[in-house]
Amino acid sequence: MINGNTEIIAHIGYPTYSFKSPMIYNPYFEQAGINAVVVPMGCQAPDYPTFLRSVFQLTNIRGALITMPHKVTTVGLLDEVTATVKVAGACNAVKRTEDGRLIGDMFDGAGFVRGVQRKGLDLGGARVLVVGSGGVGSAIAASLAGAGIASISLFDVNQASAEALGQRIQAHYPQIEVRTGSNDPADHDLVVNATPMGMKAGDPLPLDVNRLAPETFVGEVVMASEVTAFLAAARARGCRTQVGSDMLFEQIPAYLEYFGLPTTTAEHLRSVARLSY
Amino acid sequence: MINGNTEIIAHIGYPTYSFKSPMIYNPYFEQAGINAVVVPMGCQAPDYPTFLRSVFQLTNIRGALITMPHKVTTVGLLDEVTATVKVAGACNAVKRTEDGRLIGDMFDGAGFVRGVQRKGLDLGGARVLVVGSGGVGSAIAASLAGAGIASISLFDVNQASAEALGQRIQAHYPQIEVRTGSNDPADHDLVVNATPMGMKAGDPLPLDVNRLAPETFVGEVVMASEVTAFLAAARARGCRTQVGSDMLFEQIPAYLEYFGLPTTTAEHLRSVARLSY
Repeated sequence: MINGNTEIIAHIGYPTYSFKSPMIYNPYFEQAGINAVVVPMGCQAPDYPTFLRSVFQLTNIRGALITMPHKVTTVGLLDEVTATVKVAGACNAVKRTEDGRLIGDMFDGAGFVRGVQRKGLDLGGARVLVVGSGGVGSAIAASLAGAGIASISLFDVNQASAEALGQRIQAHYPQIEVRTGSNDPADHDLVVNATPMGMKAGDPLPLDVNRLAPETFVGEVVMASEVTAFLAAARARGCRTQVGSDMLFEQIPAYLEYFGLPTTTAEHLRSVARLSY
Repeated sequence: MINGNTEIIAHIGYPTYSFKSPMIYNPYFEQAGINAVVVPMGCQAPDYPTFLRSVFQLTNIRGALITMPHKVTTVGLLDEVTATVKVAGACNAVKRTEDGRLIGDMFDGAGFVRGVQRKGLDLGGARVLVVGSGGVGSAIAASLAGAGIASISLFDVNQASAEALGQRIQAHYPQIEVRTGSNDPADHDLVVNATPMGMKAGDPLPLDVNRLAPETFVGEVVMASEVTAFLAAARARGCRTQVGSDMLFEQIPAYLEYFGLPTTTAEHLRSVARLSY
């Protein structure tokens, strides 16, 4: 129940119609007795820099969830960002410090990483392959880089994207071995599809599943179906897997903690969400 | 249930803790199936001009409810305001036109006027007395001036305030007879207490109730108690009355209509509100 003491979490993007966060956070807030509300705010690119500064002047703003098309722009608008933001080249969480600076972090990849860790995968010293170096692939690679991996293989149909991502990782995490140019999943502890392959029926698989070892953990970002053709093939090989929507729900506890709100588990959020996943 | 298609009504003021509108509008929206939400936005004076312009760039903003301390400032920030705003010297409703201009109106007084009209008082040709020429008194006088009255008597302990208000009325409504300097309620069809007298126990009455005729309709703005000492005295004289909180609930249909939303009655709003009045 919104009242005069309610704090706002601004959910800023455009268009807003596909926003899912209000239907996850708000039922959780209500159930947990947290006096905060996620408010969708449709903001177009030319208006965004001014609006972001202005909305953070509000006395009852707790933070902002940033989504398309502003995740990249946000990086250049803040006073301080994390290494994850710098490697990902994008930012989806903003808050104001007590002294009035705007700082940002990026949790798309954190959702993926938390998910596989909670499923028992130890990322310390792991060898990982991320196929797709666009926004979501870069975010996942950035969070994996911060989670103690030994090496990362990057592949994108646009080889320059993969190389640029690899250079950003190397700059911030010089101890990590970075390779680009191959999507061969052999000899990896974790393999991630971060391409759109699987969104449409009949899409080719993002890599050669015959080269997947059963010990390899396989993650997916596509949410078009709960178990994509790629995940089904990986399971058939005996691999443990993580579905696309886990990344969505697993990143919410990261946001809650960042905003200083009582946190919970992805499972609990899934159970209270008014969404069909 | 807030989702990606929800429209925002920004409730802008500072501090926010005493805001009541979210607990009236939002239960109504929910019950009526209107996908809109009133969101309290705490905004301090130095930040307000930029924030107001910026929040109206949002693609899903339906309008703004403006409250303290911004009602006066708002008048100078808009592209177009009504005569009511000009006479009241304050604005509490803002919306954006299709061509992007910001326009404003003032409904504090409209709430009072709608209330007395719905209670059967015919304001056409009426002689009215408004005691108190501060923000609320000016708003009520402005709305009464637009409702067809014949004459208005204005009184304030600060005589200059009453005179300035009288001059603004005269400028916009030259046909109305304006008097200032007396709070004698005799020979009036409507008498309004728009002073803070009655907020504290033991406050003197705002005018000499012994001079009230039983035919005079008496209105009140103080909400500290449902029936203030002034209203009790007026009722004892046989007068019909309007309580302070009626002004609050009666102005909401005016806002709803202004914002192009389905409207309802003050009684219905009162019944769904999560407030104790």
